[in-house]
Amino acid sequence: MILEEENKEHITFKISDELVEQVRILIEEDNKSEVLELLSTYHYADVAEILEEINFEMAVYVIKLLDSDKTSDILSELDEDIREKILENLSAREIAKEVTELDTDDAVDIISELPEDRQKKVIDKIKDEDLKADIQELLTYDENSAGGLMAKELVKVNENWTVTECVREMRSQAANVTRVHSIYVVDNEGRLIGRLSLKDLLIAPDREKISNVYIPRVDSVHVSEDAEDVARLMQKYDLEAIPVIDDDKILQGRITIDDIVDVIKEEAEKDYQLAAGITHDVEADDGILELTRARLPWLFLGLMGGIGAALIMGDFEAMLQNHAVLFFFTPLIAAMAGNVGVQSSAIIVQGLANDDVKGSINNRLFKEMLLAALNGLILAMFLLLFVWFWEKNVYTALAISISLIVVIIVAGIIGTFVPLFLDKRGIDPAIATGPFITTSNDIFGILIYFWIAKLVLQI
Amino acid sequence: MILEEENKEHITFKISDELVEQVRILIEEDNKSEVLELLSTYHYADVAEILEEINFEMAVYVIKLLDSDKTSDILSELDEDIREKILENLSAREIAKEVTELDTDDAVDIISELPEDRQKKVIDKIKDEDLKADIQELLTYDENSAGGLMAKELVKVNENWTVTECVREMRSQAANVTRVHSIYVVDNEGRLIGRLSLKDLLIAPDREKISNVYIPRVDSVHVSEDAEDVARLMQKYDLEAIPVIDDDKILQGRITIDDIVDVIKEEAEKDYQLAAGITHDVEADDGILELTRARLPWLFLGLMGGIGAALIMGDFEAMLQNHAVLFFFTPLIAAMAGNVGVQSSAIIVQGLANDDVKGSINNRLFKEMLLAALNGLILAMFLLLFVWFWEKNVYTALAISISLIVVIIVAGIIGTFVPLFLDKRGIDPAIATGPFITTSNDIFGILIYFWIAKLVLQI
Repeated sequence: MILEEENKEHITFKISDELVEQVRILIEEDNKSEVLELLSTYHYADVAEILEEINFEMAVYVIKLLDSDKTSDILSELDEDIREKILENLSAREIAKEVTELDTDDAVDIISELPEDRQKKVIDKIKDEDLKADIQELLTYDENSAGGLMAKELVKVNENWTVTECVREMRSQAANVTRVHSIYVVDNEGRLIGRLSLKDLLIAPDREKISNVYIPRVDSVHVSEDAEDVARLMQKYDLEAIPVIDDDKILQGRITIDDIVDVIKEEAEKDYQLAAGITHDVEADDGILELTRARLPWLFLGLMGGIGAALIMGDFEAMLQNHAVLFFFTPLIAAMAGNVGVQSSAIIVQGLANDDVKGSINNRLFKEMLLAALNGLILAMFLLLFVWFWEKNVYTALAISISLIVVIIVAGIIGTFVPLFLDKRGIDPAIATGPFITTSNDIFGILIYFWIAKLVLQI
Repeated sequence: MILEEENKEHITFKISDELVEQVRILIEEDNKSEVLELLSTYHYADVAEILEEINFEMAVYVIKLLDSDKTSDILSELDEDIREKILENLSAREIAKEVTELDTDDAVDIISELPEDRQKKVIDKIKDEDLKADIQELLTYDENSAGGLMAKELVKVNENWTVTECVREMRSQAANVTRVHSIYVVDNEGRLIGRLSLKDLLIAPDREKISNVYIPRVDSVHVSEDAEDVARLMQKYDLEAIPVIDDDKILQGRITIDDIVDVIKEEAEKDYQLAAGITHDVEADDGILELTRARLPWLFLGLMGGIGAALIMGDFEAMLQNHAVLFFFTPLIAAMAGNVGVQSSAIIVQGLANDDVKGSINNRLFKEMLLAALNGLILAMFLLLFVWFWEKNVYTALAISISLIVVIIVAGIIGTFVPLFLDKRGIDPAIATGPFITTSNDIFGILIYFWIAKLVLQI
């Protein structure tokens, strides 16, 4: 149950182009009151979307115009690139005012994006000493750890308080917490020892001590826990919030499900981009140079693979005279090796991410071998008939088809082995699904293809 | 705040092999009391994981042994394939008992997986008439719509009740709701008209009418709303629950954030698999035939592409005599066309999924053209130097390099256009990132390559 009230603005599925145009015109007319009135009816997430549409000077205009309790949320929702530009146009004092309005986890997300000298200046301008200390603490955690995800805002009560004291304290604490998911119980040292159900609290006598009514079981994660593991855990157990403790079991903060949703989405997007041969974190609307930086290295890898394939074919040039048709099928062999490799690696990468790749590596390689052999056999039979019909030469057809089976099996094994190997070495296996596996499979595929063709045709 | 209590069992990051082995041995010894005692200390999500590890007869043994309030949650967590097999071994009465323990949305998920005649039998065995009606209603919705996601369990109060009546009603309703996110206010016809804050309820006089204290603004979605759109909406506005209404604004159910997390994950996994050329929904542990069914069609598509490429090269056979080296670079051309196509389509697919592909298609195609031209130019210069050095023939080197630039530009345009086109036509653009785009780009790439090479070399 949500104790604090939510925003009063209506939500919407899509911001219309007309609305964006209207905002643009009002800003051009410098009609401050109308801009304020219009935007006040929209949720901060929608205002953020509008700001991403209008140009950057206009976005700064709006941010300076609106009240900081709304602009702080807007800043928090904005795309990183646009936020960075806007923050460059705000003074340290203005930024400090914005982050003061936010939950500590969101405040830290914004501050951590600033250059280091600005970080210091902004923190110096934060007036609330407790908040300053909280933010400084949160900045010390790795952003991909539980500590990096958690907020300091939570409702905690001491086991030695009475129910009356507890309710009073809770009220004042809850004012700072957007959503109270759980009431955590700590001992005098601040160690997390349990939680409190609102129901029990409501039926307990006023003078009763919390230590007599609390539930002594509570799940928690350590500050240094990996963010993805926390996401997996909260998802598996359907948790909406989880407390975070340090080495001494001191309650340090709380992670809520909305942060986990972001982790899951970001992880999925990163894996998807890696599989497509794009280095992490670009969007369709990024600049051409940025997109080139993300894409070119992988294309260069592909170029190297292609040059490798060309060199191999050069080595087998002697076969051109009598078996030119072999060369016509090299793109087919490369494509099949690449496709099979991507398929098998994708299944392994996804299995590893969901933590359900069980059993030994050998079993898995054996299974993939069987699978590849089955697929290869079916495809090879088809290819055999085609080449036989086209070239009227059963030996060439046989050579190409047998090669295809072997290439597919090897590609499947490489595709299975590489991500498992990377994972064992602590490297993100997702990099294995993209151009990395297609390129290496291209080269291996073409090499194997010519070897086997040579063998079969007894050249 | 969670009114209902959560499970009392501890959560864990990973189930150990030893534990699974221990369970296996106890079952083999038919030691019922020990199995019960051991499993009682584990969360249902963990028991589900254990059941996925032991063989299927053992899993049925455990399900029949445990209490139905725990087994219902276990069944709900199990992998679909394993659940299907277990349900085949339970009677309609047993399944009815299990689903009665679950929230309606989870109950419907399980029932909808059964064959149609069994569905009817199971529903007939449900004793609670209200529950039966709720389940029958939920079964009518598309599983990818808000109606298919929602649960009937929620806390709703009538605007004409007094605070006292309201609190009494809420108590009995809350008993059926795992987590009370919000209290919804309806009128006499059951239309959603607002929500109630617990805080306001607590400070209002007992005789006060709800119509005087409720908040008349509440966000909702329609039953027929697309599940992915609901997910995007809840994520954008950081909502933890949203009420669902029908055409007459009658409150029909409620969607919670944990269901949305599943939607987001499934969507990401589907896109990832499609990009890798795997038809939706297989796992590393699925059977070989199932995996073949998911993978073979895409490989067959690749085979067709390869045959197409071979036919094109056959057409240009006359160039073999003097320019054999051109044929050595066909795998390179095909690989680059495929890689660029996958990169540009992946960015568009992801942008469409996040709803941030703005502006006209023409602008986007122009941008991709510039980007591809820049990447192509850099790569082509490198290739030019390599071929020149290798073949000592600047014309061949020029022909291959110029072709590469054109092929990359065309590949980028195809990769950008196809997903945008599919999306406009209402087809999931994610199918465009996989073998579909690589295969068509292979063929176009090689065709363009030979055309341009012929032109440059003036053959």
